[in-house]
Amino acid sequence: MPLGVGVIGAGVVGGGVIRTLLSNAGVIRDKTGLEVVLRHVAEINQGNLKEFDLEGIRVSSDAKSLYDDPTVDVVCELIGGMEPAKSFILGAMAAGKHVVTANKMLLAQAGAELTAAAQKHGVHLRYEAAVAGGIPIIKALREGLAANHIRSIYAILNGTCNYILTRMTYEDLEFEAALKRAQELGFAETPPDLDVDGWDTAHKCQILASLCYSTRVNLDDIFVEGVRNVTHLDVAYAREMGYVIKLLAIIRRGDTEIEARVHPTLVPEAMLLAQVRNEFNGIYVESDIADATMYYGRGAGRMPTASAVVADIIDIARARETPPPSPFRYTHEIDIRDIGLLEGRYYLRMTTLDEPGVLGEICTILGKHRVGIASIIQKEEAEDTPAHIVITTHTTIESSVMAALAEIDPLRFVTEPTHVMRML
Amino acid sequence: MPLGVGVIGAGVVGGGVIRTLLSNAGVIRDKTGLEVVLRHVAEINQGNLKEFDLEGIRVSSDAKSLYDDPTVDVVCELIGGMEPAKSFILGAMAAGKHVVTANKMLLAQAGAELTAAAQKHGVHLRYEAAVAGGIPIIKALREGLAANHIRSIYAILNGTCNYILTRMTYEDLEFEAALKRAQELGFAETPPDLDVDGWDTAHKCQILASLCYSTRVNLDDIFVEGVRNVTHLDVAYAREMGYVIKLLAIIRRGDTEIEARVHPTLVPEAMLLAQVRNEFNGIYVESDIADATMYYGRGAGRMPTASAVVADIIDIARARETPPPSPFRYTHEIDIRDIGLLEGRYYLRMTTLDEPGVLGEICTILGKHRVGIASIIQKEEAEDTPAHIVITTHTTIESSVMAALAEIDPLRFVTEPTHVMRML
Repeated sequence: MPLGVGVIGAGVVGGGVIRTLLSNAGVIRDKTGLEVVLRHVAEINQGNLKEFDLEGIRVSSDAKSLYDDPTVDVVCELIGGMEPAKSFILGAMAAGKHVVTANKMLLAQAGAELTAAAQKHGVHLRYEAAVAGGIPIIKALREGLAANHIRSIYAILNGTCNYILTRMTYEDLEFEAALKRAQELGFAETPPDLDVDGWDTAHKCQILASLCYSTRVNLDDIFVEGVRNVTHLDVAYAREMGYVIKLLAIIRRGDTEIEARVHPTLVPEAMLLAQVRNEFNGIYVESDIADATMYYGRGAGRMPTASAVVADIIDIARARETPPPSPFRYTHEIDIRDIGLLEGRYYLRMTTLDEPGVLGEICTILGKHRVGIASIIQKEEAEDTPAHIVITTHTTIESSVMAALAEIDPLRFVTEPTHVMRML
Repeated sequence: MPLGVGVIGAGVVGGGVIRTLLSNAGVIRDKTGLEVVLRHVAEINQGNLKEFDLEGIRVSSDAKSLYDDPTVDVVCELIGGMEPAKSFILGAMAAGKHVVTANKMLLAQAGAELTAAAQKHGVHLRYEAAVAGGIPIIKALREGLAANHIRSIYAILNGTCNYILTRMTYEDLEFEAALKRAQELGFAETPPDLDVDGWDTAHKCQILASLCYSTRVNLDDIFVEGVRNVTHLDVAYAREMGYVIKLLAIIRRGDTEIEARVHPTLVPEAMLLAQVRNEFNGIYVESDIADATMYYGRGAGRMPTASAVVADIIDIARARETPPPSPFRYTHEIDIRDIGLLEGRYYLRMTTLDEPGVLGEICTILGKHRVGIASIIQKEEAEDTPAHIVITTHTTIESSVMAALAEIDPLRFVTEPTHVMRML
């Protein structure tokens, strides 16, 4: 029997799902032998529906009519945000409907509650589209690498930030100019805060960490730094040293804790991840059995995201007869390591007056805090302009770097707070 | 109830599967809630079993005992080759067992027969490990991109060839020296023919094409050219023009036919695929809904291949209650386009006497066959040494290029057959 699909929200992503279900039902049938049929669309703004031929498909202006519709087996929640999305999902589950969502913000903040509701009502809750759009990364981690212990994930998960950083790197643009370009091309929203301040990446980081380690992750425990403070100067220095700056979500498993953090990171140019450019996403995974794998594609946009939503619908059609698996499994209690305890290498760019003794004083303070210097660059500048001192450190503890900078930055000859970035 | 697993063949891959099932059963249980238990190992050479603690696990020296064992639900065929692997798989299916295999040669040559047997007996036949080892590419194509019409695949599927070509590119080695290095490091077998002559890639190309287009693909219809004739000279010229040479499996969908071919290819350096180096594999997929995605990882080796085998086992555990899906779906009859009809760009390296009039005669012949020249390089050589003329063409028909070369190569001043490579 065909699987009946209801779509709540016919905006960018919802419209892509409607279009895919209308145009590609034949492809799906050919490839899988399964029938998925659009039955019902709920949308407040009927203008959004004009572009589709919805002959024979029920249209409502409220979600409840949709999830009470007995011809609907799967409800796709594609309006985004916290409320009313959450109430719609809980209502659909209570009505015995499977749910597919692309709502990363909601999952990151209420994943445990939604999982409990799905378990209680014996329905599927699937969310491939919530992380990295058209890239089947949830499936790869949950099924393809199911036999693996995940050691670490380094992921570019926000197309807006990656586009901005790529243009800063290859076109010598400053942040504001690159952001403006991204907005003109539709790769960035107005206001862009959720993206450029790192929160969108943090939501996806929370979802991946919960999934990989079967543990509840508190969003507030994730260290988050966005790309607003990355300057063209840092991008240029990094390149000179063989690095590209990327906004990464980093998840790593320690013995008793995990790391989960989001910040601009210097990635060695020779790593494939450094070559993920423009609005594309890339997820580099290290695991104990398969070793390194990487997944690349469009992390956002109408049709790529729709591809993931419809893949989830098809999976539900395929698995309909079995009791659904838990969306997340919270079988473990694992803490997230405090960012201060992070061990890694650091890029420090200091801006100072060009005076004798400056470098000696800085190096002495770093040494006192056991921060080893791996490389140092200071270039000749015109007289009376501040000097830039760029230092990369050996592996050290984040709190030592911060303690050293707390002494360095107030020094009389330091004219700007030191720019700090973590290196991969 | 736990899923009982039997492993036929405890060699490289089989040993990896045994090790994974013994070491990571807890990880699998945590992540999926499923229990998979190794019950039985069949291996002729008992010496292969010494490294494992098989306490409580039945060991046989024949496959039949294993697939007749009522505690075994899934049989993993990991001996490779045509026979007796095929008989073992058919025997296991007849005994009602699900089958997981890594045997690309067998699937490429008898996929239709095995599919029919699986359907007849109502069992799963799964083969994630047969293509690209630890990369979950079968799952990505069959499930992750299930809603998509696949437009094209460009894939590096043989780690041996990619290692050799990488070393030729970045260490200025000739083919033989790079092959020797690959053999020393265990990345190439002795004899290396199945890999370097392109057949291993062709087997995987056959499997991907069958899967993507739900059609029987005759292995003999796939054009296959290996890497034996790629010289360091070609690699260097290609780089100078901004290309890297890769052995690609190329699958593309036309209106009425598909292309399926394997040959050395000039890949633009700016493409992510060009950055897939050494023994790694990469699969670049273009599809109508998700657009471009790429998958990267280790395509061979004990543990990465084991990761894929165990993922298939877990999928069977997850889906045990439903009627198994068909391994391949042969719902379409589509022809493979003859290589002579290929439209593309070509790299031609000619070796000629350094005489007046040579270039004119060559260009006249190319023009007569409507082959347009996009770029040409001829460098000064020491006197009395042959000249190399390197030409890249505009888009043209393969048969036109071949017709032109059939006139050019017999010319008195041409001292070596022209080296031809296709460009991406």
